[in-house]
Amino acid sequence: MPRLFDRVTIAGVGLIGGSLALAARAAGLIGEVVGYGRTEANLQTAQRRGIVDRYSLDAAEAARDADLLLLAVPVKASGAVARACAHTLRPGAVVSDVGSVKQPVVEQVEASLPAGFTFVGAHPIAGTEHSGAAAAFPELFQGSRCILTPGRRSTADAVAKIRALWEGVGMRVDEMDPARHDQVLAWVSHLPHAIAFSTVTALLDADPGMEQFAGSSFRDLTRVAASSAEMWSDIFLDNATQVDAAITQFIAALEAFRRAIAAGDAAQLTTQLLRARAARQLWSPART
Amino acid sequence: MPRLFDRVTIAGVGLIGGSLALAARAAGLIGEVVGYGRTEANLQTAQRRGIVDRYSLDAAEAARDADLLLLAVPVKASGAVARACAHTLRPGAVVSDVGSVKQPVVEQVEASLPAGFTFVGAHPIAGTEHSGAAAAFPELFQGSRCILTPGRRSTADAVAKIRALWEGVGMRVDEMDPARHDQVLAWVSHLPHAIAFSTVTALLDADPGMEQFAGSSFRDLTRVAASSAEMWSDIFLDNATQVDAAITQFIAALEAFRRAIAAGDAAQLTTQLLRARAARQLWSPART
Repeated sequence: MPRLFDRVTIAGVGLIGGSLALAARAAGLIGEVVGYGRTEANLQTAQRRGIVDRYSLDAAEAARDADLLLLAVPVKASGAVARACAHTLRPGAVVSDVGSVKQPVVEQVEASLPAGFTFVGAHPIAGTEHSGAAAAFPELFQGSRCILTPGRRSTADAVAKIRALWEGVGMRVDEMDPARHDQVLAWVSHLPHAIAFSTVTALLDADPGMEQFAGSSFRDLTRVAASSAEMWSDIFLDNATQVDAAITQFIAALEAFRRAIAAGDAAQLTTQLLRARAARQLWSPART
Repeated sequence: MPRLFDRVTIAGVGLIGGSLALAARAAGLIGEVVGYGRTEANLQTAQRRGIVDRYSLDAAEAARDADLLLLAVPVKASGAVARACAHTLRPGAVVSDVGSVKQPVVEQVEASLPAGFTFVGAHPIAGTEHSGAAAAFPELFQGSRCILTPGRRSTADAVAKIRALWEGVGMRVDEMDPARHDQVLAWVSHLPHAIAFSTVTALLDADPGMEQFAGSSFRDLTRVAASSAEMWSDIFLDNATQVDAAITQFIAALEAFRRAIAAGDAAQLTTQLLRARAARQLWSPART
């Protein structure tokens, strides 16, 4: 595949940014990779692992002459990092990101970027409960989906290159309105994380000693409660309205379920379970 | 290991009963295995797969001269099957079960068994979202826990043999009061299943098209929603009081979480997430 970008600056060399660097380099999609971050130990790990060729603790310095700036920092820092880098980027450079919430990123970066730069919001839907450059691995994206949220600062050429980048590391790419993205992700990712964290919290409040008898259902459900607290606090607050709506609708469904149990209504309960089971069985083959 | 039982009748040759037969035979713990069930096709599958040597659609016939009757039928059928088998079992035979809820089984079977038989309640905490003899495999129990709930119809000798049986197929065995068992399982198994079914239901009500964008958190959380609807309807109703309490406490934790998000309180939210994360990270190594 032809090279898409000659010099890529990755702002925030964590699980996602680091894995992309490894995968895109292995595929020959990008040339030099320069890291930017605030924690030198993590950048040193990234350099040692061959994720970045070099790094800087200064955003503008790291961005010098890059033709792609990939924002993999917390959503609330995206606008400021984009602004700090803009004057050293190569003219016409593409700016993109990997944020789990899109509307606030798009708004911030579009407002922060000087004229002459394009921005393409992107969300590779992949991850594990681990974080940092040490957790990065090139296969992370294989077979998962990536959502692009093109906006008023996107050009067709930039969208095509960002699409080719994520497709090139094994993802299936879709395009979506940022608000719709945030609603969908509230349901399929943020809600499951809120449930995982809350299930652990409830068990801790009830009796932590019970956990030793957990089977695979509890372990699988709570796995992502080991994820970064800081990152998830940001995501929940960045997408507060949609997360609130999903949690509220989920609680209503669980309450209906609880009432069917309390009523001892086996027929009604079985009907509810069969509907969920039929759907989950349909989803299963394509997903696991 | 010395043989524990010469002839075992398995009433309900599904995932659990079938896997036990395969594992215990491979370990030389049991001799002949006779299957009983209501669905001949499933029993034929069991015979073809070498799970049972023979089978009968008549419980008393299947139980003839057995020295272990293993009840792997729905909880509500346990007492009736035990009673139907009692007159053909070998005198002094041990009766045990594999039910996910213990208090109602113990009550039913103790009330149904004639004098001269011992009963030891047991719950091997293992399973997958699949069911039936076709899904059985001998490694199912390796490394998981089994809880025995000895009662007034248990003898020390019978408890020791049932313990040796489950330990012999790779389980770590604990003993517990039936009521405590039902509380613990409501939290570590029944609640996660209720959450999984309700998450799928809520998504179906909101917009099923969103599922295609699900990542591993949603897939793992909802995996067990593909489990048998009939079996889980029974489990939820058999353990209704404890399941209701666990769901209620979980909803309270999730509501507190939702309020912290709505309040935009990053510090409070991060504190909640850090507490859950620290616990889940401690649990993880031993469990996965």
